[in-house]
Amino acid sequence: MSRYWSDIVNRLVPYVPGEQPALAKPVKLNTNENPYAPSPRVLEAIRHELGETGESLRRYPDPVAKRLRAAVAAHHGIRAEQVFVGNGSDEVLAHAFHALLKHDEPILFPDITYSFYPTYARLYEVEYRTVPLTEQFTIRVDDYRQPNGGVIFPNPNAPTGHALPLAEIERLVAANTESVVVIDEAYVDFGAESAIALIDRYPNLLVVHTTSKSRSLAGMRVGFAFGHPDLIDALNRVKDSFNSYPLDRLAQAAATAAYEDGEWLKTTSARVIASRERLTAALTALGFDVVPSAANFVFATHPAHDAAAIAAKLREKEIFVRHFNAPRVNQHLRISIGTDLECDTLIDALKAIVA
Amino acid sequence: MSRYWSDIVNRLVPYVPGEQPALAKPVKLNTNENPYAPSPRVLEAIRHELGETGESLRRYPDPVAKRLRAAVAAHHGIRAEQVFVGNGSDEVLAHAFHALLKHDEPILFPDITYSFYPTYARLYEVEYRTVPLTEQFTIRVDDYRQPNGGVIFPNPNAPTGHALPLAEIERLVAANTESVVVIDEAYVDFGAESAIALIDRYPNLLVVHTTSKSRSLAGMRVGFAFGHPDLIDALNRVKDSFNSYPLDRLAQAAATAAYEDGEWLKTTSARVIASRERLTAALTALGFDVVPSAANFVFATHPAHDAAAIAAKLREKEIFVRHFNAPRVNQHLRISIGTDLECDTLIDALKAIVA
Repeated sequence: MSRYWSDIVNRLVPYVPGEQPALAKPVKLNTNENPYAPSPRVLEAIRHELGETGESLRRYPDPVAKRLRAAVAAHHGIRAEQVFVGNGSDEVLAHAFHALLKHDEPILFPDITYSFYPTYARLYEVEYRTVPLTEQFTIRVDDYRQPNGGVIFPNPNAPTGHALPLAEIERLVAANTESVVVIDEAYVDFGAESAIALIDRYPNLLVVHTTSKSRSLAGMRVGFAFGHPDLIDALNRVKDSFNSYPLDRLAQAAATAAYEDGEWLKTTSARVIASRERLTAALTALGFDVVPSAANFVFATHPAHDAAAIAAKLREKEIFVRHFNAPRVNQHLRISIGTDLECDTLIDALKAIVA
Repeated sequence: MSRYWSDIVNRLVPYVPGEQPALAKPVKLNTNENPYAPSPRVLEAIRHELGETGESLRRYPDPVAKRLRAAVAAHHGIRAEQVFVGNGSDEVLAHAFHALLKHDEPILFPDITYSFYPTYARLYEVEYRTVPLTEQFTIRVDDYRQPNGGVIFPNPNAPTGHALPLAEIERLVAANTESVVVIDEAYVDFGAESAIALIDRYPNLLVVHTTSKSRSLAGMRVGFAFGHPDLIDALNRVKDSFNSYPLDRLAQAAATAAYEDGEWLKTTSARVIASRERLTAALTALGFDVVPSAANFVFATHPAHDAAAIAAKLREKEIFVRHFNAPRVNQHLRISIGTDLECDTLIDALKAIVA
């Protein structure tokens, strides 16, 4: 604390991202990264942008990421003016809190969800109210039929992996026309239905995506929002009052190439899904309860072993999973889907711990 | 405007960056980019990070940019905890407005200065008061001896190019111990003295740098703030409530390499300075009044020709300079220093216009 700080700084509770261990070969199943290298076209596009000398790096990037937005719009069958681009979906979500979720009524989100939401709310002084998930960690959309300044949750939800059917999302959006509903679809490619199909019909729906998970570009920081041009306009006004060029030249080239390679996305997502089902079966065989997951992670608890203790023992073996010390979920572990080999290493280690 | 917008969105006046023309070979002297490709070490470092397959891109980058901050601290002879890193100095400045400049009293900045400052102030609802430059476009530090919630200006100032001596900066910082003074040194390597030399002695001083100008990395989006660890802590708390990973892996690799090549910086800056003096002489010979510049641009006016008209005629020849339609400066042009060849092309075109 310092007398030079703005008042708001004292009230912040910064988000703590999953650990990035400085080890040669950790089994890193703690930040939901994709176990596979990105599409070869990504590498090609970055090399092309670099050229022989990197000469283009001296120039500012395109502030509106025109080529990238066109590629993404084409992939989703929508118009470029329905696409906002930011530095990872975290930046996109931050701008959404500032531009679209700050109203008189508090916003609503689940009690168990992405732990960055309350952090954004504090940063922009947005009031919020949490809505409890059911005992099975599912979202009941009727619980969100109450006055609100906005609604936000991930689908599939994090850290549970549970997905809502599109019809339920539509019911929520249709019942909530007075405020913006943000569906954070970071994990949608691993088994949920995207609400992008609804944006033409609902001007209050904003759908957020990222290249960090299904497109293996966590290291490049590119995220999106999709919605009515009026919502996109609000995000652009805030973005252009903050940082004209949040995506560098190589990030724009990389993400454009990633969206142009639809085949790679299908193949890789299918592999991750297959590994998830395999891991779920192995965990269940060890006595874990596993929440049915539509994401690239599973959320699991063991009736006879403390979750934090399991995580600590795994860490000793350089295996990293995520434990949240929070109400209702502190006996669960969130385990990212690695390669089958990584999952096997995890299962072997768990056998020694829970046997 | 839309009922879904937060109130603040209606009050924003987004910053408009200089045009990025979609032409094969424009003479682009409008956004103060460096005319030379970045250090060859930058290219090497990016290629090294990419490797054979781009495999590392699937992993999140280091959220605290440890290697980069160490390289930058070593370059400046300071400690890593005195260094904050952001997505270009624009993002760094935005966080500074939010974290350090929002107090009861209005902040102060010159009437003629970087036009992003009032935009940030609106975004974060920071009151401000502008302080007129002298008739010669210089800052008189005694004008800033008035109650304030903070002071911010570039040194050299933009778009004038005028630099204050370090002793004057110190006098201002020492006379203003109750609030934070931000010195925005985007252009310092082209001929001004850095206030980094003062940060150990003044806990209220924050110095902001960028890799976009003297290090030829506008395309990679990396900026810094230097100051007392308490100020850096405030910036980190806001950053970690906004976006954990604003710098991708390739940007961190690129900027680290750029700071490790001090020789390249010296040689290239000297070339730009020599071209600036040459361009200044040629403009003067054509009848322009040129503000003495310590930056990689000059600010010039012609007593017999309208500045906007000159800019429009240059544009027809695919030569881009920047004109600000603002009080006191609407008869000036800001011209970035290109290669000598580009400067000659500009001068030839101007001869036809003002002769």
